[in-house]
Amino acid sequence: MIVLCNDDGFNASGIRSIYKELAKFSEVVIVAPETEQSAMGHAITLTQPLKVRKVVENGKFVGYAVNGTPADCIKIATTVLFEQPPSIVVSGVNQGGNLGTCAIYSGTVSAATEASIEGIPAIAVSLNSFDNSDFDFAAKFGAKLAKIVLKNGLPDGVALNVNIPAVPESEIKGVSITRQGKSRVIETFDKRVDPRNNTYYWMAGDMRFDEVDDEADCSQVSNNYISITPIKFDLTSYNTINELKKWNIPI
Amino acid sequence: MIVLCNDDGFNASGIRSIYKELAKFSEVVIVAPETEQSAMGHAITLTQPLKVRKVVENGKFVGYAVNGTPADCIKIATTVLFEQPPSIVVSGVNQGGNLGTCAIYSGTVSAATEASIEGIPAIAVSLNSFDNSDFDFAAKFGAKLAKIVLKNGLPDGVALNVNIPAVPESEIKGVSITRQGKSRVIETFDKRVDPRNNTYYWMAGDMRFDEVDDEADCSQVSNNYISITPIKFDLTSYNTINELKKWNIPI
Repeated sequence: MIVLCNDDGFNASGIRSIYKELAKFSEVVIVAPETEQSAMGHAITLTQPLKVRKVVENGKFVGYAVNGTPADCIKIATTVLFEQPPSIVVSGVNQGGNLGTCAIYSGTVSAATEASIEGIPAIAVSLNSFDNSDFDFAAKFGAKLAKIVLKNGLPDGVALNVNIPAVPESEIKGVSITRQGKSRVIETFDKRVDPRNNTYYWMAGDMRFDEVDDEADCSQVSNNYISITPIKFDLTSYNTINELKKWNIPI
Repeated sequence: MIVLCNDDGFNASGIRSIYKELAKFSEVVIVAPETEQSAMGHAITLTQPLKVRKVVENGKFVGYAVNGTPADCIKIATTVLFEQPPSIVVSGVNQGGNLGTCAIYSGTVSAATEASIEGIPAIAVSLNSFDNSDFDFAAKFGAKLAKIVLKNGLPDGVALNVNIPAVPESEIKGVSITRQGKSRVIETFDKRVDPRNNTYYWMAGDMRFDEVDDEADCSQVSNNYISITPIKFDLTSYNTINELKKWNIPI
């Protein structure tokens, strides 16, 4: 069984597109947030209870809508909802790329990471556009990749972060195995004043593309390649350990 | 100037303890969530505006309380609130350890990671107990480490995740430079039924300590050493790149 999650919410177009493709070769159950949870990172819900709504459409069981984050969805899917763990977790298709540093803010990516923590192979699939909602190719490619991962497996603790250029299929040049790039969103805050004279700020921002490495996800997607970055949840900077040991920090 | 953040909220005991210690050698401004934001991971707030409340206590400017996440606090601190970026970001002292896999759920850690993305040296400091609220030693050690980091700097993109055993100072054996362990919380969901007959779940869980590596943060803290793990925001699993290239994935 495939568990399908996202961060755009249970009824988003992207998840529904890939649902159809996955259902062609496997049982699929959607376990996804009831409402949009973009930019939730790896948040989990400890201070409120989680409600789980069973969703049946036209007499057919489709999945569970959860009033929580993507990581919550995976936790409850693997712990409570099913007797056996899923064979794979697919997250997406996300509206908007999760490239460079943006991956760490992404609920879509965190659903895949959470699965990998629990020993379940997982892929996160994103379409690199906030406007173009034609998910057909991304959904087909994501489903094909899920099938390949089901066959090959993934190393323990590794998930795949997949980003798909939002161009016509004929313009896509190939598939690149990449690393997470250094590009990041440069935030701006739009300052306003409310009717009671309190200042408030809206966060906005643009992706700053300053990648010098051709092997980075952002470079490859800009060049119309699909990027696949293997990711892991171990944040340790191993290169820094020996340097810090030299500091001889006292108590 | 030091920017001080946390995820337990502006008025938590842990942040107030380390504030006093940091103020002994530097200007310190608290920029922290108005309310508790534990387990928020690297969430940022895009769908609501951020309110920033200037906090003055006994005539003295202390900082800004923000109705957002720890990562929001760092973004607004580095973009809007000050003319110059802080020389260091300190996050904590957190009530509860951020050891092993727990680091990725932690708002405290994400404040430090966010700073490192923006090129600012940062440390996250946590006291490994949910009960013991004696932050004195943790605050003193955290402030001492901040001073060392201000002197030595940190490699680009690296922050320090520091965990302090909740034992009397006399029982602390030393400081270990560690890696992020594999221990994780095993969730349980407490199933209940509301008065309208809807099922809901409370997430709970216990840390499963199954570390075999002596150099892991969880092992060292269990043995009454302070752990310092250098962390980075690049999630790439470099070891897996060559394996995936062999798959020759077609479009």
